[in-house]
Amino acid sequence: MQKPSGKIDMDFPEKGRERVKIENLSPEVDGGQFPCKRVLGEKLTVKADIFSDGHDVISAQLLYRFSKSRTWKNAPMILLENDRWVGEMIPTELGIYIYTVEGWVDHFKSWQRDFKKRVDAGQDVEIDLKIGTDHIEKAAKQATEEDQRKLLALASLLRKTGKLESSIAIALGDELTQLIEKYPVRQFSTRYEKELQVVVDPPKALFSTWYERFPRSCSPVSGKHGSFKDCEILLPEIARMGFDVLYLPPIHPIGEKHRKGKNNSTVSTSDDPGSPWAIGSAEGGHTAVHSKLGNIKDFDHLVKEAKKHGIDIALDVAFQCSPDHPYVKSHSEWFRWRPDGTVQYAENPPKKYEDILPINFETEEWKSLWEELRSIVEFWIGHGVRIFRVDNPHTKPFSFWEWMIPEIKKEYPEVIFLSEAFTRPKVMYRLAKGGFTQSYTYFTWRNTKEEFISYLTELTQTQAREFFRPNFWTNTPDILPEHLQFGGRPAFLMRLILAATLSSNYGMYGPAFELCLHEARPGVEEYIDNEKYEIKTWDWDQPGNLKDFITRLNKIRRANKALQTTWNLSFCENDNEKILSYIKTSEDLSNIILVIVNLDPFYTQSGWVKVPIRNLGIETTQTYMVHDLLSDEKHIWQGENNFFQLNPHVVPAHIFLIKAKLKRETDFDYFM
Amino acid sequence: MQKPSGKIDMDFPEKGRERVKIENLSPEVDGGQFPCKRVLGEKLTVKADIFSDGHDVISAQLLYRFSKSRTWKNAPMILLENDRWVGEMIPTELGIYIYTVEGWVDHFKSWQRDFKKRVDAGQDVEIDLKIGTDHIEKAAKQATEEDQRKLLALASLLRKTGKLESSIAIALGDELTQLIEKYPVRQFSTRYEKELQVVVDPPKALFSTWYERFPRSCSPVSGKHGSFKDCEILLPEIARMGFDVLYLPPIHPIGEKHRKGKNNSTVSTSDDPGSPWAIGSAEGGHTAVHSKLGNIKDFDHLVKEAKKHGIDIALDVAFQCSPDHPYVKSHSEWFRWRPDGTVQYAENPPKKYEDILPINFETEEWKSLWEELRSIVEFWIGHGVRIFRVDNPHTKPFSFWEWMIPEIKKEYPEVIFLSEAFTRPKVMYRLAKGGFTQSYTYFTWRNTKEEFISYLTELTQTQAREFFRPNFWTNTPDILPEHLQFGGRPAFLMRLILAATLSSNYGMYGPAFELCLHEARPGVEEYIDNEKYEIKTWDWDQPGNLKDFITRLNKIRRANKALQTTWNLSFCENDNEKILSYIKTSEDLSNIILVIVNLDPFYTQSGWVKVPIRNLGIETTQTYMVHDLLSDEKHIWQGENNFFQLNPHVVPAHIFLIKAKLKRETDFDYFM
Repeated sequence: MQKPSGKIDMDFPEKGRERVKIENLSPEVDGGQFPCKRVLGEKLTVKADIFSDGHDVISAQLLYRFSKSRTWKNAPMILLENDRWVGEMIPTELGIYIYTVEGWVDHFKSWQRDFKKRVDAGQDVEIDLKIGTDHIEKAAKQATEEDQRKLLALASLLRKTGKLESSIAIALGDELTQLIEKYPVRQFSTRYEKELQVVVDPPKALFSTWYERFPRSCSPVSGKHGSFKDCEILLPEIARMGFDVLYLPPIHPIGEKHRKGKNNSTVSTSDDPGSPWAIGSAEGGHTAVHSKLGNIKDFDHLVKEAKKHGIDIALDVAFQCSPDHPYVKSHSEWFRWRPDGTVQYAENPPKKYEDILPINFETEEWKSLWEELRSIVEFWIGHGVRIFRVDNPHTKPFSFWEWMIPEIKKEYPEVIFLSEAFTRPKVMYRLAKGGFTQSYTYFTWRNTKEEFISYLTELTQTQAREFFRPNFWTNTPDILPEHLQFGGRPAFLMRLILAATLSSNYGMYGPAFELCLHEARPGVEEYIDNEKYEIKTWDWDQPGNLKDFITRLNKIRRANKALQTTWNLSFCENDNEKILSYIKTSEDLSNIILVIVNLDPFYTQSGWVKVPIRNLGIETTQTYMVHDLLSDEKHIWQGENNFFQLNPHVVPAHIFLIKAKLKRETDFDYFM
Repeated sequence: MQKPSGKIDMDFPEKGRERVKIENLSPEVDGGQFPCKRVLGEKLTVKADIFSDGHDVISAQLLYRFSKSRTWKNAPMILLENDRWVGEMIPTELGIYIYTVEGWVDHFKSWQRDFKKRVDAGQDVEIDLKIGTDHIEKAAKQATEEDQRKLLALASLLRKTGKLESSIAIALGDELTQLIEKYPVRQFSTRYEKELQVVVDPPKALFSTWYERFPRSCSPVSGKHGSFKDCEILLPEIARMGFDVLYLPPIHPIGEKHRKGKNNSTVSTSDDPGSPWAIGSAEGGHTAVHSKLGNIKDFDHLVKEAKKHGIDIALDVAFQCSPDHPYVKSHSEWFRWRPDGTVQYAENPPKKYEDILPINFETEEWKSLWEELRSIVEFWIGHGVRIFRVDNPHTKPFSFWEWMIPEIKKEYPEVIFLSEAFTRPKVMYRLAKGGFTQSYTYFTWRNTKEEFISYLTELTQTQAREFFRPNFWTNTPDILPEHLQFGGRPAFLMRLILAATLSSNYGMYGPAFELCLHEARPGVEEYIDNEKYEIKTWDWDQPGNLKDFITRLNKIRRANKALQTTWNLSFCENDNEKILSYIKTSEDLSNIILVIVNLDPFYTQSGWVKVPIRNLGIETTQTYMVHDLLSDEKHIWQGENNFFQLNPHVVPAHIFLIKAKLKRETDFDYFM
C-alpha cells in the first residue's frame, strides 16, 4: 500500500501484469522474520494459497536453493483444494536453504482445457487450433534443440487444414501435453514477495538421547572429586544404555566468595565444592577447566573417547559469573555496580543469589561483551564440542541469542543449542525462533491424559513445530517432579516411556533417575542433598536400578524409524481416562508404533483402544499383529477396537510394533 | 536473520540493547501488506505479545497518527495475560491512520516493585533508596518545569538519611507513582518493526441499507422506457422505506451487435433494450448516459434530489465493453484479437457471451488502460457519486484494484466500493484486502442453522473481520435463491430479517423482492423474464407487498445501535434445529437486541432460548423485559432459559429489545 507520491508515472506498480497472487505461505515463521527448521533428509513441505483473476488455468512451483549457491532449483506444486497448493523438497546440506514460490497464468493449459470443452460441445475449433499452435511455438523457443524440433513438428501438424480429427487428437494427446509441460511459458509470472529460510541441522537435532551427569561425581572412590578420566571409564556403559549425548554441568573453576553449602545453604565450609554454575575463580573463567576435573588435554581426550562410542559431549553455557570471576576485574564495565561501590549480585527480591553476578547487557560496552561471549562458545567448538545446553537463556537479551547463534552456525552449521528456559510460553517460543535448536518443555509438569493431548497437540500440530523442537526430560538436577516423589518405580518407568516415545529428543539426569531417587527437600520439587552443592559417589548398579530397561527402550528407539521424529504423533482414542494411547508411523507406513501408557502408577488399568486402521492401510477384514517390543508379547488383532490391560507394577506401557498380516494366509514369516 | 557479511563491526545488530520484543500484533493483515478497516468513530483495538528477557517490569504504548500528520499520538497499553497487551484508539478523520506499538523495560517500575518486596521482607533498603532517587532524577529530566520541581523534591526527601520510614512511604506512595508515570524513561525502547495502516471509511461503509432498481423500469407508463426523472419520483418512497443507498445497474448506452433478447436469448428484436451490462455504443461508453434515461444533467439532478432524502446513488462499475463500444476502435490494443482478425468476446467454454468483450489486462498498453479506467470512476465522482458497486471484480487483475482503489481514496477517502464477486473464498477475501470497502457474500446460499453459525463465525470472529465487510443481499437480478422460489411470503420475511439483523450492511433487488417475485427460469436460480433483458412496469403497491414490513425493519435498524455493526454478533443456544438465535449489543450494553428466527417457512417452531444474562449485566434473580420490536409484544423473562414460539405465517422472527427491570420494584417506567 505504501508507494511514493510524485509523478503520475511513479504511481504504477512495477508488475501490474502479474495476475497470480500468492498468500498464506507456510512454513513462514512470523512473516519470515525467522527461519523454520529441518534436519538433513527431513522433507520441507511448502504450501500456499495461489490464485489468479478470471478463469485461466494457473501453474506453480517451489523454488529453493542452498544459501551458498546462486542457482535456484524447482519442484512442481500441485493444487490440493480451495486454491491451496503444495510442493516439497528434501535438504541435503547442513546450513541455510532459501525458498519461495512462483505462480503464473498458464495460457497453454488454459487453451487446452477450453479446447477440449469446445470439441466436446461440437463447436467449430479451426481458429482455436491456430491459437494453440501459437502457444506451442512460444514454448518451443525455450526447449532443447531436440524438443524444439518435436514441438514445432506437432505445431505444424496442428496447422494442417482439412485434417481436423487428427489435429484434435494431437492437441489433446499425451505427447504434446508431456513435452510442453517441460517448457512452461512463465510470462508475467509472480514470485512470492519474500524469500524464506530453513535452517538445516544435523539429524541429532531431531533424534537424540541425552544423559546428564556431574563429572565431579564420577569417581568410584567414596567422597573423592571425580575427574574427566573417571568420566571416560563410564562411557562404554553410557553408550550401552543407548545415549548419544553426554551433557556435563559446568566444568569451570568455581567461585569461593559467597560459595553455597549443602542444600543451597548460604554458609559453606572449606570442604564444600560449591555450585558449578558459580563460574570463575582466580584459576580462570568460562574457558578454564576446574583443576580437579583435569586439564584441557584431559577434556580433549574425553571428547575423543566419547566420539568413539557415538557420544557427543554437551557443555553447559551459563553466562554468569561468580564474584571471583576474572571478568569482574578485567571487565568491570560488564557488571552493574551499586551506589555503595559493590557489585550487583543476582536476585529475585527478596531472594538473593550472592554466589552469582548477572551480566549487564545494557552496558555501553555491549559489543565487546557479545564478542567475548561468542568467543567462549568458539573456544569449546575448538575443543570438539558441538552441542551446548544453554542455562537460563531467558535472562539474557533475545537479541544477543538471535545474533550469536546464527553467527556460530554460519561457520559451524552442525552445532546444536538446547535452550534451558523454564518460563512463560511466549518467551520459550521466542528463544526457539531466535535460533535455539532444541528446547526444554513443560513435559515435566504434564500429568493427565488431557494435559498430554493438549500440550502435544500444540507442540506438533501448530506452527510451533516449524521452529520449536522439544526435548523431554524426565528430571533435572533442579527438578524432581512430584509424580516421581511418590509414584514409585512404576512412575519412573511411565515417565521414561512417555519422554522417550512422545518426543524423539529426550533426556534424563542420572544416576538420580535410573536409581529412582525420589526424596525431595520438603515443599519443593527439588532433590534433597542436591548434587549441585556436593560431590556424590554413586552405586550405579544398585538393585532395582532401571539401566536395563532404559537400554531396551533406547534400542527400540534406534530400531524404529517412527520413534525418530516428533512430528508424526497422532493420539488415538481409548475409553479409559488413565490411559494415553498414540500412534507414530514412518511416512511410508513401513514402521508403525502404537504406544499405550498407563498414567496411573498404582492400579492396573484396562480398556479398549481404537486403532485407526484405515490410515494404516489395514482393511477391516484383515488381521494384524501387535508385537510388544517391551515384553515381547504378540497379539493378533482385527478391526478398530481392541482390548488392552496394563499393570504398572509389571510394565506400565505397551510399545506395539504393528504389522498387517499379508493377505495370503500362508505367508506369515514376520512371526519369526 | 539476513545481515550483510563483511567487516566484523557490521555484524552487530543496530539495536542490540533493545530488550523488549513485540510479536503477533493484531490487527495486521497479511503481515501488514494490507490495511485493516474501520469507520469514523469505530474503535481500533490493538493487541500484541510484548515481553522482555529477565524479570524486569515492562511498559508499552500504542502509537498512532493520521497519515497526513507527522506527530505520533500515544495511548497506554495494559497487560491482559500471558504477555498479551492491549491498547486502543478511535479514529476521527477519514483516510489512513498509521499505527504501531512500543515497549520498554521500565526500570523505575521494576525498582519500585522490588523495593516493596525488600521492605516487606524487612531487608536493609538504604542503598536501594539511593538507586530509586537516581531513577526519579532521570525521569525528572523529561518533565515539565513544575513536575520537575516536584519530582526533584521527592527525590531529595528520599535521599534524607535517618528518615527511613517516611522515605519508604514516599517511594511507594501515590504521588510519586502518578507523577513519574507521566515521564517514563524509555531507554532502549523497542518499536515494533512495522508501521501498519488502518483505512478509515465513512459510517455508511459499516451501516448501510441498499436498494437496487433498474431506472429504465421506473416509468409508471406500461412498457415505456423509464428515465432518471421517473426515478426521482420514487425517491420519497424509497427513503420512507428506510433505504440510504439506491444502486442503479449500468446507465450507459447499450451495444447493438449481438444484443441479447428476452431471457438471455442470443436472438433479439429491435424492441429489445439489451442488457445494461453490454456497455457502449455509437452514443458513447462508460462516461456516457443512455439517451432514454436522460442526459448527464438529469443524472446530476437525480443525485442531488436523492441526497435530499438521505440517499446516495450507487453506480455500477462494469469494466467490459459491447462490440460497439468506442474503445474497440479507439483503443483496439486493449482487447484480444483472434487469428482471423475478429475480436475476442467473453466466454466460459463452451458458453459464449458475444454481447460482451473482456478487456485484455495483459496488454502492452496496460498503463494507459489503467489510467482510463480510473478516469471513469473519477468522472462519476465528479458527478457526485460516492458509492460504486463493482461488477465481477474477480475477472480483472487484483493488482489493478489494489492500485486503483487506494489511488481514488487518496483524494476521496469517503468513496465506497462494493465488490460483486461471487467466487471462491480466497479470491473474495483478496479483493477485500486489496481495497474493496464492502463485499457480497455467500449469505444467499446459507440456509441451515449450522451453516449460518459457521459462516457468520468465520466472518465476525476470524481475521476476516479486519478487512472484509459483508453486505448481505436477499436477492439480485442474477440470483433468485431456491428458498425464495418455494418458501412463500414467510421465506421472504425470514431472509429479509436475517439479512437486516445479521449484517449491518444489507440490500435487496426491488421491486422483485418486496413483490415476492419467485418464478425462476427452470433449473436455474434466476428470475424468469429477467429484468436484465427487458423493461418492466411494476405495480409497486400490489397487495401482499412487503413495503411496510421493510419500512418497520429498517426503522428498527436505525433506532438500535446494536444493529449498526456486524462485529458484535454472538449466537445463543436454543434447543430447536430450525431456530437461529443471536444477541447483538452496543459496547456499553445500553442497547441489547435478541433476534430469534424461524428458519422453517412452513411450520410453527417453538423452543427454549438461553439468554446469556451474565454477559448482559442481568442477575439470575432479576427479571427483564423483552419487547418484540416487530409485533410490539412484551414479555417479562427471568433467568437464562426462556420459551418462544414462532408461526412463520404471522411473523417468522422476534426482534427483542431487552431491558433489565430496575432493582427497585416501584420503578418500571420503561413500560410506558
